[in-house]
Amino acid sequence: MRLRSLLFAPAVRPDVVRKTPGTGADGVVIDCEDATPADRKAEARSLARTVGAEIAAAIPVWVRCNGVETGLLGEDIRSAIPAGAAGVVVPMVESEIQLDSVRGILAGAGRSELGVIVGLETARGVAAARDILTHSVVVGAYFGAEDFIADMGGVRTESNIEVQHARSEVALAGALGRVPVLDQVVVSYHDADRFIREAGEARAMGYAGKLCIHPSQVQLANRAFTSSAEEIDAARRIVEAHAHAVAAGSGVAVVDGRMIDGPLVSQARRVLGMADADGVD
Amino acid sequence: MRLRSLLFAPAVRPDVVRKTPGTGADGVVIDCEDATPADRKAEARSLARTVGAEIAAAIPVWVRCNGVETGLLGEDIRSAIPAGAAGVVVPMVESEIQLDSVRGILAGAGRSELGVIVGLETARGVAAARDILTHSVVVGAYFGAEDFIADMGGVRTESNIEVQHARSEVALAGALGRVPVLDQVVVSYHDADRFIREAGEARAMGYAGKLCIHPSQVQLANRAFTSSAEEIDAARRIVEAHAHAVAAGSGVAVVDGRMIDGPLVSQARRVLGMADADGVD
Amino acid sequence: MRLRSLLFAPAVRPDVVRKTPGTGADGVVIDCEDATPADRKAEARSLARTVGAEIAAAIPVWVRCNGVETGLLGEDIRSAIPAGAAGVVVPMVESEIQLDSVRGILAGAGRSELGVIVGLETARGVAAARDILTHSVVVGAYFGAEDFIADMGGVRTESNIEVQHARSEVALAGALGRVPVLDQVVVSYHDADRFIREAGEARAMGYAGKLCIHPSQVQLANRAFTSSAEEIDAARRIVEAHAHAVAAGSGVAVVDGRMIDGPLVSQARRVLGMADADGVD
Repeated sequence: MRLRSLLFAPAVRPDVVRKTPGTGADGVVIDCEDATPADRKAEARSLARTVGAEIAAAIPVWVRCNGVETGLLGEDIRSAIPAGAAGVVVPMVESEIQLDSVRGILAGAGRSELGVIVGLETARGVAAARDILTHSVVVGAYFGAEDFIADMGGVRTESNIEVQHARSEVALAGALGRVPVLDQVVVSYHDADRFIREAGEARAMGYAGKLCIHPSQVQLANRAFTSSAEEIDAARRIVEAHAHAVAAGSGVAVVDGRMIDGPLVSQARRVLGMADADGVD
Repeated sequence: MRLRSLLFAPAVRPDVVRKTPGTGADGVVIDCEDATPADRKAEARSLARTVGAEIAAAIPVWVRCNGVETGLLGEDIRSAIPAGAAGVVVPMVESEIQLDSVRGILAGAGRSELGVIVGLETARGVAAARDILTHSVVVGAYFGAEDFIADMGGVRTESNIEVQHARSEVALAGALGRVPVLDQVVVSYHDADRFIREAGEARAMGYAGKLCIHPSQVQLANRAFTSSAEEIDAARRIVEAHAHAVAAGSGVAVVDGRMIDGPLVSQARRVLGMADADGVD
Repeated sequence: MRLRSLLFAPAVRPDVVRKTPGTGADGVVIDCEDATPADRKAEARSLARTVGAEIAAAIPVWVRCNGVETGLLGEDIRSAIPAGAAGVVVPMVESEIQLDSVRGILAGAGRSELGVIVGLETARGVAAARDILTHSVVVGAYFGAEDFIADMGGVRTESNIEVQHARSEVALAGALGRVPVLDQVVVSYHDADRFIREAGEARAMGYAGKLCIHPSQVQLANRAFTSSAEEIDAARRIVEAHAHAVAAGSGVAVVDGRMIDGPLVSQARRVLGMADADGVD
């Protein structure tokens, strides 16, 4: 499952949802939570199911339901998930117990095959991230910076210093749970520089991709979370130099002024493996 | 309880303590710990109680006692806390067990009504911050950067890179315990630029205020931890735009080039709520 | 045990190992892991033991074995550790259970006197750092940034933003376990600026020293992790000013525009203590 870009679209905007296959996003999240006003939840579910089914062959479709504590999640799962959906997105997750509930609801609705992407976007969610992301129902996660900082009583800034700790903790939890994690949205959606900078940071930290709230962000994300030709070339030279070193009886090589041994070779192999996978996509 | 600025004054300097109500600080901490030499502890207690009582009607009065492990805390609580005190500050807290002791001492002294602000300023204290700040006796906390880095065997720098992790962890623990946290002192007390920069970072991270060691820092803290007119105006526009969007059937609005939904609206409401509270202060 | 600089040398390069006493490093790590190809492990052990014994009187000798999960560690400890070795380095440690195994292997080989420096260089290792570094067999640790980021699926950058969280967590764990921690390698071994910058950050965070992979890095590390004449002078003035303040009945002094009390005095005393120890080295 590739998750470089996951594009949000409001369930109550079928025109917007129908355009998402053309964006190149690795998935669409039809949003029944924040983007849906409280008095249109039933309508949103119906639209998510029918419009989601229309596009499910063209793009992986996820539906963001309302959180476990809202009392809306059961009906969301029973009524909003289209045939062929990739899975559900559950926001505001704070504990393993909530995930046990989610599993029960999925089973009760006969939808146990659906994977769950969880939103970690509160102090409690971040604090419990390691437990949450090792829960068996979870197939991915995102870090919700705006909600997290609202819960902290803080202020979002361009520096991202206020989310550095939580963002890192979520990345670590993702690695422990061996599930991909998606980085925070950039709400100033015309600010491509910020998006590119954040995507670079996120990729360095181990994030698999980035949430997108506008089609223009999708290609930025796809590019940022794909190895460049230079990276692939550098990886190839590392693997080759190391192979020569080993053939000559040494475990160490020097490439571009860097001492190369085990970990850098593993890194390089991973880059080449992903590049090969891209090639056959 | 508002804690934008908490101004330290040595117990053995009654002249300094008496001036604190004029500074505009949200509270004074009469210090019987670091600022009191070991051979003047008894005198400090007596001064804290009498001078604290003089000013308690004009400013919330806290007394910083000596830590649980010093053996001085019992006598501090019995003898140094003035009538009308807002509470006690206990430094160097490292475990919930110590807080059980503090509660026992308060009960034994018939002062169970006093809230406790704890100092997290050692490796152990930071490591146990989540447990400590959810203890029922705790009403607030501060992060003591100088002591923390001394305990780590590190070096304090202007970059604050060496405390970023611990400072974030304390903010997170405060949010988990739903208690306000106060940011580190700036010991170079004439360096207003550094104070303002740190206060901005701290507020972004969710800190409620900053420890002050000089009267000139109080107004900097009060200003930094109060929403500016621009912030209040931006919050108002967000709430209004969102209300219009909801009335029109959408959960999403665009304000100043930013996509606005749930979390940003919550943030904006919080800013407006605090601004209203300021208005009626 | 001083660990400002720990210089790696491949076991299969006895010429390189023999030169390490002349570098001024606080210790050499003869590497039987990454720097040794899989088909030369037996030869590497033999060389580590014999060449290590030659130089053990001139420099503290550590041997990096292969990790617990490789199945090679038992033979490494039985065959690769020279007489007079300072201890063993065990890479890729992820749990206390693995350390119980290490202790058993050491006991079985009759080498229980050897201290263990552990490598924390995976998501699991970092996540369990607090438990690992309080295990009684551990005398030190290093943070392996390249391996860690390979395990995270991230990308190493000059900014180090992607390792800031893990690097801080390892420093905190070291302080909790009261063992020295060593900072990440700089693989671009001619980049002295980067090494000096990283060493300064690491020292500020509480690291005792830095792993070195080239002799030219040793003096940079030794200098970075030793107090400068200016630092020693500043520490002396702080201690003196505080003593004068205490004699005059106050716990607070002002030095160079900074308000000085308990924690800064402790810091200054530590700097002077280490400087004295250096003097008698």
